[in-house]
Parts: sequence; structure tokens; C-alpha cells
Amino acid sequence: MDFAPDSRTTQLAAELRAFVDTRVIPSEPLFADQAQTSGWDTPAVIEELKAEARSRGLWNLFLPREHHERHGYGAGLTNLQYAPLAEITGRSPLIAPEAVNSSAPDTGNMELLSLFGTDQQREEWLEPLLAGEIRSVFSMTEPAVASSDATNIATAIRRDGDDYVIQGRKWWSSGAMSPRCRVAIVMGVTDPEADPHRRQSMILVPLDTAGVRIERATSVFGYTDSTHGGHAVIHYDDVRVPAENLLGEPGSGFALSQARLGPGRIHHCMRLLGMAERAVELTVDRVKARVAFGKPVAEQGVVQHWIAQSRIQIEQARLLVLKTAWLIDTVGNQGARTEIAAIKVAVPEVTKYVVDRAIQAHGGMGVSQDTPLAALYAQARLLQIADGPDEVHEMVIARRELRAR
Amino acid sequence: MDFAPDSRTTQLAAELRAFVDTRVIPSEPLFADQAQTSGWDTPAVIEELKAEARSRGLWNLFLPREHHERHGYGAGLTNLQYAPLAEITGRSPLIAPEAVNSSAPDTGNMELLSLFGTDQQREEWLEPLLAGEIRSVFSMTEPAVASSDATNIATAIRRDGDDYVIQGRKWWSSGAMSPRCRVAIVMGVTDPEADPHRRQSMILVPLDTAGVRIERATSVFGYTDSTHGGHAVIHYDDVRVPAENLLGEPGSGFALSQARLGPGRIHHCMRLLGMAERAVELTVDRVKARVAFGKPVAEQGVVQHWIAQSRIQIEQARLLVLKTAWLIDTVGNQGARTEIAAIKVAVPEVTKYVVDRAIQAHGGMGVSQDTPLAALYAQARLLQIADGPDEVHEMVIARRELRAR
Amino acid sequence: MDFAPDSRTTQLAAELRAFVDTRVIPSEPLFADQAQTSGWDTPAVIEELKAEARSRGLWNLFLPREHHERHGYGAGLTNLQYAPLAEITGRSPLIAPEAVNSSAPDTGNMELLSLFGTDQQREEWLEPLLAGEIRSVFSMTEPAVASSDATNIATAIRRDGDDYVIQGRKWWSSGAMSPRCRVAIVMGVTDPEADPHRRQSMILVPLDTAGVRIERATSVFGYTDSTHGGHAVIHYDDVRVPAENLLGEPGSGFALSQARLGPGRIHHCMRLLGMAERAVELTVDRVKARVAFGKPVAEQGVVQHWIAQSRIQIEQARLLVLKTAWLIDTVGNQGARTEIAAIKVAVPEVTKYVVDRAIQAHGGMGVSQDTPLAALYAQARLLQIADGPDEVHEMVIARRELRAR
Amino acid sequence: MDFAPDSRTTQLAAELRAFVDTRVIPSEPLFADQAQTSGWDTPAVIEELKAEARSRGLWNLFLPREHHERHGYGAGLTNLQYAPLAEITGRSPLIAPEAVNSSAPDTGNMELLSLFGTDQQREEWLEPLLAGEIRSVFSMTEPAVASSDATNIATAIRRDGDDYVIQGRKWWSSGAMSPRCRVAIVMGVTDPEADPHRRQSMILVPLDTAGVRIERATSVFGYTDSTHGGHAVIHYDDVRVPAENLLGEPGSGFALSQARLGPGRIHHCMRLLGMAERAVELTVDRVKARVAFGKPVAEQGVVQHWIAQSRIQIEQARLLVLKTAWLIDTVGNQGARTEIAAIKVAVPEVTKYVVDRAIQAHGGMGVSQDTPLAALYAQARLLQIADGPDEVHEMVIARRELRAR
Repeated sequence: MDFAPDSRTTQLAAELRAFVDTRVIPSEPLFADQAQTSGWDTPAVIEELKAEARSRGLWNLFLPREHHERHGYGAGLTNLQYAPLAEITGRSPLIAPEAVNSSAPDTGNMELLSLFGTDQQREEWLEPLLAGEIRSVFSMTEPAVASSDATNIATAIRRDGDDYVIQGRKWWSSGAMSPRCRVAIVMGVTDPEADPHRRQSMILVPLDTAGVRIERATSVFGYTDSTHGGHAVIHYDDVRVPAENLLGEPGSGFALSQARLGPGRIHHCMRLLGMAERAVELTVDRVKARVAFGKPVAEQGVVQHWIAQSRIQIEQARLLVLKTAWLIDTVGNQGARTEIAAIKVAVPEVTKYVVDRAIQAHGGMGVSQDTPLAALYAQARLLQIADGPDEVHEMVIARRELRAR
Repeated sequence: MDFAPDSRTTQLAAELRAFVDTRVIPSEPLFADQAQTSGWDTPAVIEELKAEARSRGLWNLFLPREHHERHGYGAGLTNLQYAPLAEITGRSPLIAPEAVNSSAPDTGNMELLSLFGTDQQREEWLEPLLAGEIRSVFSMTEPAVASSDATNIATAIRRDGDDYVIQGRKWWSSGAMSPRCRVAIVMGVTDPEADPHRRQSMILVPLDTAGVRIERATSVFGYTDSTHGGHAVIHYDDVRVPAENLLGEPGSGFALSQARLGPGRIHHCMRLLGMAERAVELTVDRVKARVAFGKPVAEQGVVQHWIAQSRIQIEQARLLVLKTAWLIDTVGNQGARTEIAAIKVAVPEVTKYVVDRAIQAHGGMGVSQDTPLAALYAQARLLQIADGPDEVHEMVIARRELRAR
Repeated sequence: MDFAPDSRTTQLAAELRAFVDTRVIPSEPLFADQAQTSGWDTPAVIEELKAEARSRGLWNLFLPREHHERHGYGAGLTNLQYAPLAEITGRSPLIAPEAVNSSAPDTGNMELLSLFGTDQQREEWLEPLLAGEIRSVFSMTEPAVASSDATNIATAIRRDGDDYVIQGRKWWSSGAMSPRCRVAIVMGVTDPEADPHRRQSMILVPLDTAGVRIERATSVFGYTDSTHGGHAVIHYDDVRVPAENLLGEPGSGFALSQARLGPGRIHHCMRLLGMAERAVELTVDRVKARVAFGKPVAEQGVVQHWIAQSRIQIEQARLLVLKTAWLIDTVGNQGARTEIAAIKVAVPEVTKYVVDRAIQAHGGMGVSQDTPLAALYAQARLLQIADGPDEVHEMVIARRELRAR
Repeated sequence: MDFAPDSRTTQLAAELRAFVDTRVIPSEPLFADQAQTSGWDTPAVIEELKAEARSRGLWNLFLPREHHERHGYGAGLTNLQYAPLAEITGRSPLIAPEAVNSSAPDTGNMELLSLFGTDQQREEWLEPLLAGEIRSVFSMTEPAVASSDATNIATAIRRDGDDYVIQGRKWWSSGAMSPRCRVAIVMGVTDPEADPHRRQSMILVPLDTAGVRIERATSVFGYTDSTHGGHAVIHYDDVRVPAENLLGEPGSGFALSQARLGPGRIHHCMRLLGMAERAVELTVDRVKARVAFGKPVAEQGVVQHWIAQSRIQIEQARLLVLKTAWLIDTVGNQGARTEIAAIKVAVPEVTKYVVDRAIQAHGGMGVSQDTPLAALYAQARLLQIADGPDEVHEMVIARRELRAR
């Protein structure tokens, strides 16, 4: 249970922090300006930052060590080594993760392709993803059913000769509105008669395949998340792809979704904590500068209570995420299952608290586009729903606790 | 302390409820469609609904009885009579309040004009407002200072011969982005040497006056609130208006802002409770229809806990607002000061809880545009900041409590 | 929905308030001293206070109007009239309720006897209770089962010739440790084959009957509640009483328990609010007198936040209890069922918050016997369990809400 | 930041856990019985357990390594090594800490004596304390002032020839009611003119010195904590002791109190987490065994929510305490100051939540003496006040955060 950053992490963290502080955060206003006119595409400054990140060696840091060992992909870091780096990217969550080619859902998709992809699949999709040339989408959640119960999934992936034919409707397919998004990993049912957790498979669907119809985008609070390609509702209407597009074995869909889960959870949670730290910084700067009722707002007891509680809660949550990363590295997703569920519940709640109090400390500015706070809140709130609502994760934890005696 | 609706209120409530349920709520999808292309203007369906509301006698219900007695304006209801009607409009808060010509900030502005306006001011601005022909803006909050402390206001209103010359920068001037918005009531300092609460005055500024520059709009979470004319940042740069545009006496600005406060607080709070009731209805419908882990979501204990807590909290909050309305009617704003502060703190908090749990019950749909929930949350959250943050109102309450012994 | 106190209530409230403030609260130290040595009996000062209360006409105020109409018992007040009086007694909850002969469980037992007792039962038990000469116990909860589900009750009341024979074990039989406690109303199963809500009956058991064995007392947090006769575990071991001791019809036990419920809930909740008000008063006095870090504690923002929140929450909760009282008076327990459940959940939570913050404001003194605060907390906490835990009441509310659409 | 238990800790933890589970917890009923009649003295079973603990090598484990290095005292563990052991003793907090001679306030007093005591002081007081033969008291808090602000302390320690004369009134002098308690460390002012943090000194006062008057005991909620010698109010009325009784240098009182703070905080917090774990265990056992409304309580969603939240919160809090222990070991109290303050706020709050939900899950049993839960709650609640209220610690944290930018 040694969470201290080793020398490599320390070095990378310093470099990444410098990059984020001196290049990324100062680019936020330009990014916001460009976003006014970039539609669903990425603002142009991102490509500049990507080039620079790559030249600084800050690229694909997220990909766990085993991928480096097998294929030479990524920086070869453990989850525990990468975690503090993910936090740093969370300080500017709209820009930094993509600038260092470590943004969801591409990260999880790259992991799946690296772990389970055939040589051809990796060449066709993984390599351009690792190069930051294209983007991808993960198409799992369905509007018609409670997807937190995986056995509810209704999209059909039917074998037909040398092809699979996909029929279903997905939403929250994040990124798919972007013109740079080229391929979807779609989860669907290949064998409705099998054991509930062996029914599903994942399949690669190029977005220009006939029958793929992007219906519309959904927003998060008022945010379209357009700079990341939004969140699409996609109708896969008799979409036909070659059988070799299947990812992994038939019936392995649920297992793949579990494999994708652990590291992604670490990334999300550490980025949230980076957001929370950014919110604290903004609050501190604000309350030191602002005067009300004759004294700096920083001297008001209630504001100090918010700041202290923010610090207390962030510290606790971060340690739990680091422990989870360490567990994933040492005993795997399965051995870390309680903790993977626990951080999913704990970290968005902490982030919401911290960001909400930062909003309050900023007054009207806090809910507006003049700070990143309201958008951070929306992201944290979404994460209490995405990948299963809190209630499902609490049920997992409780059942394990009940079984343990 | 009789809060029961009398026969007139009961009758009006039934009529208003019928209008909202059969005409307004069914218009929500059309309104949303039109809003895609209406820019900062009001979607066209609003004019149809206004015409119908007026023909049904559901018009200007908000204006307290005294205005009817003095000028024949409005429906002549007390605050207590109007309160349940305001709640009903809150069930569709983007449409219903405007459809019955009872939406902020026009309501408060109309009250000020009715109470303190000269004949000429009332003819020029109040009557078209009462007719729903134009809209208005209340320009008080400033980006550079903590406006919750009224003595911080920096905008200057300087006498110069027969004119006043206004210099300052305001934001959260809600509605001013709309092409239908014609006049601002601007709060500024007329006498910097006077007693702190006698320094300010309010003045009428037609928006087409030279020097009025609308810089940009601020959003609330991701929402521009474009259908209500957004929230503008306005630079009043050496804006010259005739001296007779002053509203009330010189130095009365603070007093006028207090007069405007009480009834507006009732309106806001009752609308929020209408939103909360709408959220409960949506939740109940959703959880009865949705199945997860083998049973309707409605049978899950945690969901029942949310629903019960929502009911418990709404009931308490509503009674406190009704009591406050009754106090304003019977002992005036000053006598109701603790309660006016208390509902400002209590009701947005309750609404946030109820709406947040409704979002959670809806999953991904809850944060999207497919329900009104996320937008309701943003409105409730804004109201913990607008008109002074919670902390200021709690200070008011605490000080009165401390003085009482 | 008129909650205002009428002239009679106003008059009685003033008299009761004077009695509590000038006689009861000043007797608290003496009461505490006497309690050191009074064992399970009532401290002697209580008898003096009872005599005085009676002479002042402050006696049996609790008993609802219908009892006065039927039998001439009590003061003939409605629940709404009595509610503010109950609150006043809550300001000194260990002394005042008993001083005015309106303390639980006697109040509920007297109601049952008045409503359902035979002439003989009323003469034997009700009249001495109304005179404050004896005390009584309500023996319902059982240690072996979850009594919140009434169908779980296991105690048997078996007919045997002209007698009933009772076999079972009860706890939380409050008051039974007192030497002044003479009779129990025992709930048990008379017909195990009947419909679940027609199985139970209530029966009168003099505590000196053979087979009644008081095993021990249970405490609440560390409090024995000795001055009120504690909380007894009672083994009814083949206890034989004449058949005419049955209260009401055979099989009416559940119905009687429901009848007992509504007014008792009002009493408990209003007393809790009286406790909360007392806690606020103590806090205000304390923080005005105490200096830390160079200024009175009253000027600290966090303390003002506590005081304001206390006021906000108390006001809301009180209005809901008053509405519930008014509903019971006008539409009966059944029509007020949601509200009766709602105040059970809401009021102890509010009281706990207020008292807990008062404790914090008092520092070490707050948890000690030097203020009534810690004991108030324990009482409020117990009421989240007694008469069914919060979770059961929330389920009742949620189900009604779910059925309503 | 390596928190993993090393082999020595793992070994000791297993031995201690076995001792607590097989000897201490099974002794709880006997301890409770003996406590009925042991007055302020320790129940006799404690001596048996102490003998056994000592024979098992589970003795004085608390004393940090440096004491072992300097004097050979204690087991020579670091704070990080001892922390998991402290948690285990928290599982039976009334018995286990004393059984292994690691209970407050003796632990802190022994540390002070070991670090700052003269040879004579150590021989006279430390050695019998280390042997578990006597107990001691720490007399710092005063009833008349807000002691959280150390500069408020009013007790005078006046030099008079070869003696010091002490005049003052202290409370929360825990343990002093016990006949086994022999000596107090008293904090008072030796030089009122000095710099605020150089005014105080600590001095050793044998409790049989003339002028030491134990006035009475204060309780915590209803608990007298008699088995640990209660909490005494002590009047030091012209108490004269030899000058060599001064502990450390004159004027070092504040510095000594800070030195005492860090490890004590770790002990308290880890014990609280042990209590929380015990509460979870009791809850799990209870809800699996109990049936309500047709299914085991363990299957109710709300109960699963409590259990999951308990697990989530405990895990986070424990990691923060371990990190704090590690910081104290590596960078000292001063370098760990934010964390030492943070755990003081975080851990009692978590423990309160967990224990409160355990109480709710137990129904009436939960507040009674039939489980340790209500007493655990009272202890956790007290710790939000003792050693400074939460608000003071939050202020410390906030100020450091504000200074850091």
C-alpha cells in the first residue's frame, strides 16, 4: 500500500504540471473563442497543444504498463503511476486530457483494442487513435432500458453469413457528433439464449457504414460538450459489418466491459479531483480579492468552513483512488471491486461539494461561462449517473459487506 | 394565519391549472423546437398562449391588490391569493409565467412603476408592460463588486442640468438580450456623500439611448435562457437621460429595492415549488414505468426514500412561503423580514434536492434536454445567488435572533 | 387551513408560558438534585408543580374536545388549540408535561380509555389518571420482532373462560419502573387466524397482577429516564385478568393503536419543537456571553449560520405540525395520514440538528448535565425509532405519492 | 507514502485482534455487570485482562519509537505501525485500550513524561504508569473560558520560593474520579506578561496535595464513563507543590501541548474507526437476522445504502489517518499540521454517521445498553468538542490553504 509517487511519476508530474499551467490553462480563453464557431469539431488550438505535448513526451501516458510490454504502446506506467498525471489533466478538463491523448472514451477503447484486438483491428483503428489522428465512440447505453443492469441491453448483433447485422438504438455515445470520430465499439446481444453475462459481444462499426444514423445530440445541463463531439443518439439500423469486426470472443461483451472499467474509473476520478483542486484555487484567489461587509470574503467563517471541508474531503477521496489504483495494479479489477465501486460513489460527490461551494463563493460569476465551475459541476453530476448510478454501486458494496460475515 | 385558498383563489387556481395542463405543458415541445431558431427572441408560441391566457382572464394576476385599488391595474389579488397561482406557473417555468404576463423581472418592474412612477412614466412604460407588448430589465448587480452589500454599488448617476448621466457596468441584467426589451431600471449612486442607504437612486433608461452598450450574455450552467432574453452585461457609458426619468425621490433607491423584494420573493419561491412538484410527478411516472433488477424502480427503497423526502420537504417549504405571503399582506415587508429571508434560503435548497433526486431517478435522460429537470436545477441553483447569496440572508436572520433576547 | 391561535389558545398559552418560565424552568436545578436520590420515583417538586398547575387551570389540556363533549373530561381543546401549548411544555420536557398532567404515555392511554373504555374501566383507571394520582404504561413493542410491522406482534392474549391469559415479552414499556405506575395497556394477539389487522387486541393489566415481571430497565443513550419511570422490559408470564379488562372489541387492537397515533404524534412533535426553541435560546445566550479569538462567539459566521438554519428549519416544521393538527381536527387521522407520517420524520430531524448545533456552541458543557441539551438530543433521537422508524413512515408517504398518479 | 503494515505490525495486529476477539469482547457482559457496582473504580475484570495482555506482549504498544530508543520504554513502534493496533482496541473501546495500557489520557501523559520528565519525575510517575499500576489526569480545559483559544487559559501557576502555587478551576479532567488516579498534569499561566504562547507551563500535581478539591463529575450524554474514572471538575485552590514538579521549561506549556497532540490524535481517530467497524459488524449481523415486511432487513435498499456509505466513508477516513501517522513519523507534527487538523474533523463525523445508522438498524435496542452503539455515538460526539471544536480545526486548515497561494 505504497502510494508515494516514484521518481518517474514525480518527473512526469512536474513536466505535465508545467505544460498544463503554462500552455493549457492560458489557452482556455482562446479555446472558448474558437469553440463559438467550431461546431461539433475540436477547436484548432487543440492540435497545436497536441503537437507540443507529443514533443514534450507527454503522450498516451494513460495506457497501462502491460500494453507497453505486449505491443510497445504507451508510456508503460502503472495505474498508480498514471493516477497523479490524470489528476493534473483534470485541472483543465476540456483541453488537457485531449492534448495529451488521454481523454475518454478513446482511452478505454484503446485499452480494449490493445488487449483484445486482432492485428488487423489494431492496425486499422488503434494506431490512428494512439497517434491522435481519429477519435472513437463507445456505444453501450440504450434509451429504452435501464442499462445499469447489463442484462437489459436490447441491441441485437446477429450473425448472418460472414457478417454481423446490428439493430438497436444507443445514446450517450459520447464523441460521435465530431467529424473526427470514425469508429464505434458497439455492445449488443449475440446470443439471447446464453447465460445472462455471456449474451453480449462488442463489435467495431465504422461510422460511415450504411445504416448508422446519428439522430441528434443530448446535452448535460445546458452543455452540448461540442468540443468533444457531444453525446449522440445513434440508430444502428440493419448495420452490416464483416464478422472479423467482432472484438474478442463472441459472448465476451460483459467481460470486456468489466476489463475496461477499472482503469477508466481511476482516470475519471483523478480528473474529478483535479477539477476539485482547480475549484479550490479559484475560490482562494477570489475570496482573497473580494471585499464584502468591510472585510475580505476570505475572513468569513463560513467561507473558511467551505475551504477546510473541501481540503478534508479531497484528501480522503484522493487516497482512496490511489489505493484503488494500487489494488488494480497488484490484485486486478476483481480484487479491487469494492474500491472501484466506492470511488465511483465518493469522488463525484466530493467534487460536487467542492465545486458547488466554489460557485457560491464566486456569486453570479460562478454559474456563468466566466469560470469553468458550472461546467465542472455538470461533469461531476453526470458521473453519478454514467457507468451506472450510485445506487447500483452501493448495492455492489453492500452485498459484499453482507457476504463477508 | 389562515393560509387556505379562498373561493376566488380556488376558482382562479382551477382555471390556471387547466390552462397550464392542457395548453402550456403540451406546448413545451413546440416551444423547444422554435427556441432552436428564435435567437434571443421569444418563441412564437408564446404570443398565442398570451392571447389565450388573456382571453381566459389569466393575466397580470401577480400585481398586489393595492395596485388595483390605486390605478385599476391587475387582478387585485393579495400575495396570499396569488401565491398558489405562482406555484402553478412554476410547473412550466419557461412558458407559463410569461404566458400569463407574470414573469420576472417585469413583475417587479411593473410594481415599482405602479407604486412610484409618475403619470408619464406609467403611461410610457407600465401600460405596454401590463399589456405584454414590451419587456423590461432590472439593472442592479455589478461585476466588479459584491452587490449583496448594497453600499458597494459603484455605478454613478450624476445630475447634469436637466439630465442625469449614468456611468457604470452591470451584469445579470436578465432579459436585456431580447429584441422586445425596451427599458431598464438602473440602480446607481446619486449622492456618494449621503448616508449609506440614501446614496442610491433608480432611473429609467430606454435601451436605445446613446451609450447603452450590451456587451455580451452570461449563461447559467450551460443555459443561455435565450427564450427570456438571456442575462446581459451592459455598459452604461455616459448615458444621458432627462431628469424626469428618475424613479421616485433621489436617494430612494435602496428603499425601492426593498419594496420590490417581498412579493418577488414569494413569486420566485412559489414557482420553485411548482417546479419541485413537476419534478415529483415526472419521477413518479418514470419509476413506475421503469424496470431494473427484476422489479419496477418504484419499489426500490432508496427511490421511495427520495419521493417521501421530497414530499416532506415541499410541504414544509410551501407552508413557510404561504405564511410569508400572509405576513406581507398583513404586516408588510418589514414585519415579514425574517420570513422573507428564510424562504430565500429554504426553498431553493428544497427544490434542488427534489430536482436532483428526480434527475437521478431519470438516469442520463435527467441531465439532458429530454426532461426539464436539469434546467430546473440550474434555475434553483441560481436563486441561491441572485438577490443576495444564502449567507447574507442567514446573517440577517441570525442577527434578528440574537437581538431578540 | 387557519393555524392562527384563537383567543382561548392565546390566553392559555400566555398562562402556560408564564407558569413554565417562572415556576417550571426555575425548578430544574431542584428537580435535578432530587432526581439524584429519588430512584425510579418522581422527584418531589413535581407534586408541588402539579398542584399549582391545577390551581391555575393548566391541567389535562391535551385531551381533545370530543372527550370533553362526551364525558366532561379535559379542557375541551382541539388538536390545533392544544398544539402550541404542547410546544410550551417541551421547553422543559422532563418537568412541564407531567406538571400539567399531559405527559406520554399517560396522554395516549387516557385517550384510549376515554374513547373505548367501559364505565368501570374509566372509573377505575381513567379518573385517577386524569387526577394525576397514578401513572400507566403502554406495552406494545417486543424485543424479539420488528414491531414496526404490527403483524409481527407475538404476545398472546388467549381467552380462557371468563379470563384472558397473557403470555409475552415487551420492552420500551415506558414509565413502568415507577412505583406510581399501576396499570398497563398491553397489545397482543387474540385471534391468530384473523385478517392481519384484526388479530390484535388491547387489554388492561394491573401491574400487581401475578405473573407480571418487570425484568429490567433499558436506557436511552446513557439516560435511564428514571424521573419518568424509565423504560421497562416486562415479561407477562401467564398473566390472568378478567375478560372485562379487554379494551374495546376483540380484534380492535390495530385500530385502537391507529386512533392513539394522530394526537400523540402532534404532542411529541410540538414538544420537540419546544425543545428546539429552548436550545436556540440557550445558544443565543451562550454565544453572546462567550468570547473566543478576540470577539463574541455570536459574531462568528458559522455560528450565525447555525442559528439561522435553526430558525428556518423550526419555522417550517412547526407549520407542518400545525397543519397536521388542523387536518386531524377537520378530516381525521385517516385524512391526515401523509402529514402524520411526514411530521414523524421531519420534526425529530430538525430538533436533532438544532440541538446538536446548540451542543457544539456550548462546547464541553453541551454534552454534560449542565444543560438539558444532550438529554434533548437523546429524546429526539429516540423518536426516530419509537412508533416506527423513519423508514416505515417514508414508505407510507412514498406509496401514497405513487398511488396518487 | 507507504501505508502497508509491515511484518511486525501484521504480526502484532493478528495477536491483538485475537486477544480482543477472544478475550476482550467476550468479557463485555461481565465488565458491564461489574460496572454496576464498581463506582468510579475500574471493574475487576480489567486487571485480569491487563495481566493477560502483558503476558502476551501486548503492552504499552502506543509509545512512539523514540521513547524506546531513549529510555527503553514501550514497544518501539512508529505511529504508522501503532495505528492499526489502536484501531483494533477501538472495537471494544471501554476495555481494550486499558487492557493493553494504551488508554487516554495516560498515553499522552506518559509521552510527556518520557519526553520532558526529569529522572525523578519519570521514576515517580512514569514508571508506575507504564506498569499500569496508577492512572493520571490531564487538567487543561477550564469551565470559565473558551479553552480552544489557549491564550484564554486563566489558571495561575505562581512561583513562591521553592514552590509553585496553583489557583484555578478545571473540568473535563478525565479519569480523576477514579481511586487509582494519582497525579495530574496541570496547565496554567506562569508568566502572564510573556508572549501569548510562552505564558503557560505544565506542572505535576499529586491528587492528594492539599487544596486539590474534586468538586463533581460531568457526564457525556447520559454516560458517566465511571469505569474510566469519569470526567472531573477540579478546583486547585492554593495548591502548593515543589518547584521541581514543573514539567519541562517554564513557559513551555503551549509547546508541550502541541507535542502531545499529534500521536494522541492518531490514537483517538483510529480507535473511532475501530468503533465504526464494530458498528458495521453489528449492523450486518442484525439486518441479516431480522425480518420485516416479509424479507430480511438486509435486502432493503435503504439499509444497503447505509452499509455501503459506511464502508465508503470508513475507507477514506482510515487512509487519511494512516497518511497523517506516516507524516508525523517522517516530517513531524508541524509538517503534518493540516492533516492532524483534518482527521480531527473528518473521523468523528464518519464515526457518528456509521454508528447512527447502526443504531437505526437496531431500532430501540440501538439506543439502549444492549449494544455498545449509543455509547460509541456519545464518544464520537464528544470528540468533535474535545481538543478544540471542529470550527477551530477548520479555521487552521483554511488559513493554511489561503496562505498557500
